[in-house]
Amino acid sequence: MKLTILGSSSALPTSERYPSAHVLNAHERLYLIDCGEGTQMQLRRNRIRISGINHIFISHLHGDHVFGLYGLLSTFNLMNRKQPLNLYTPGNYKNILLSHLKDFDINLNFELVFTDLAGRDLIEILDDKYITVSAFPLEHRVPTFGFIFREKPTDRKMLKESIDIYNIPISAIQRIKKGDDYITEAGDIIKNELITINPPEPLSFAYCSDTKYFKRMASFVKDVDLLYHEATFESSQERLAAATGHSTSVQAATVAKDAGAGELLIGHFSARYKDISLLVEEARTVFPETVGAVDGKTYEVKAF
Amino acid sequence: MKLTILGSSSALPTSERYPSAHVLNAHERLYLIDCGEGTQMQLRRNRIRISGINHIFISHLHGDHVFGLYGLLSTFNLMNRKQPLNLYTPGNYKNILLSHLKDFDINLNFELVFTDLAGRDLIEILDDKYITVSAFPLEHRVPTFGFIFREKPTDRKMLKESIDIYNIPISAIQRIKKGDDYITEAGDIIKNELITINPPEPLSFAYCSDTKYFKRMASFVKDVDLLYHEATFESSQERLAAATGHSTSVQAATVAKDAGAGELLIGHFSARYKDISLLVEEARTVFPETVGAVDGKTYEVKAF
Repeated sequence: MKLTILGSSSALPTSERYPSAHVLNAHERLYLIDCGEGTQMQLRRNRIRISGINHIFISHLHGDHVFGLYGLLSTFNLMNRKQPLNLYTPGNYKNILLSHLKDFDINLNFELVFTDLAGRDLIEILDDKYITVSAFPLEHRVPTFGFIFREKPTDRKMLKESIDIYNIPISAIQRIKKGDDYITEAGDIIKNELITINPPEPLSFAYCSDTKYFKRMASFVKDVDLLYHEATFESSQERLAAATGHSTSVQAATVAKDAGAGELLIGHFSARYKDISLLVEEARTVFPETVGAVDGKTYEVKAF
Repeated sequence: MKLTILGSSSALPTSERYPSAHVLNAHERLYLIDCGEGTQMQLRRNRIRISGINHIFISHLHGDHVFGLYGLLSTFNLMNRKQPLNLYTPGNYKNILLSHLKDFDINLNFELVFTDLAGRDLIEILDDKYITVSAFPLEHRVPTFGFIFREKPTDRKMLKESIDIYNIPISAIQRIKKGDDYITEAGDIIKNELITINPPEPLSFAYCSDTKYFKRMASFVKDVDLLYHEATFESSQERLAAATGHSTSVQAATVAKDAGAGELLIGHFSARYKDISLLVEEARTVFPETVGAVDGKTYEVKAF
């Protein structure tokens, strides 16, 4: 899994940072997370295959996370998309979106499949071939959700040489990969751990933006490998952060630490910070494995 | 007057060209013409003072001319704008816009002043200190308007040396600049043309996008100094152009020629043209003074 940052500004974009948008590539499937103004241009600039996007996750209905959606849908249409598009949003966005498309004379050639996000608990919203995605509530000025993407466990790997040693027929391999022992024709039991090795650990990525700090958040993103967490403000602006429903970089780091995350990626920076190194340094005092998001940069999700 | 191109693509943006947006600087006042997705980022990138925009002209309600407006209004708000903003749009856009802002929790700190464009004739929609702006109907798939910006005639210029020669008091100068002759204390009449020179010719700029070719257009933009005209397609695609309500570059050049324009700037190029030199060359066979729009470039309006 790898995450490309398309926009790392907060509500006010700068010449360096676009509004919130991120694309997760998991096994060459693309998952778009938030869709601020300019998302389709940032996708093109970063040579990301727009037509590969089948799922769009919108954290909340603030413009800096949504206003790129109209242009992107229109572009899908002009590219003659037929594939259904899955949209996950809070706030009963379906009616707003459909009436706006109508106002702009846009008749989609493809189906929109809506999932309305609601509730106070972690809830699974997608289960496809390679990953599951769950949503969980954040605390912002309007209903807002975070997302956690988890790879599914894969089969155990056969030790190639064991096939020759024990003369294992192809027909038996599927079951062995699932964890079964192998029973030879003579009736000998060959323990699974002798003929297979562990598969790579399933990776996980969580996205938390926009939100103020709250203690329960860490439990939603427990043990995640890569945590993206908003860090709109520096530590001294904790009061302003709370009042506007945002976090400081130290609060983001506290969530990462309490969750036992592998790595922390901070973003959604206020336009007041021309240079975000202060925010990164502050976060590192609490959680050393912190990096600051840069538009156009791709971050590998690594096992920890 | 000078025009900066913020976006010269048609509906499908490319990595080089953003959707339609243009800013006219007339006497250091900024007039935004269309507002495609990414307009605010393009304004920042080109170091154009966003707060200097008090008038936005929207040619028609297709997304590639409008979808940057929500983000721009939201940014005005975050920048604490108090100044009223004038919006000129067809299609009774007021209700659409206000309901959409409400859906996104945006309460503007400033007043929006709407002018709804309608009718089949050239009609003046703005008369400020330095310029007048008129709208005229284009022929597209939805109600669409072009705009013509004309500098107001300025006063005649005093010949500095004549003030000494004829001993002209300061109190008389205002009237002389308006064209009066000067009458000396002795009663001699000094002809105005002896003591003043012509002011610079008032400049004019017209914007025509989106539209199919129609004969009457040239009369709306008669004698304009700089004509921006859409040229979505090359000449061989005339049928496709007509069917989609667009023009070829040769049709754009024909309008410029018939109108007696000074210079033609073509834009709104289909994404199929990675290189637009064919479109420019075709147009030049009909109207030699043709240039092709480039995002981020500024074009002086020159007298002809």
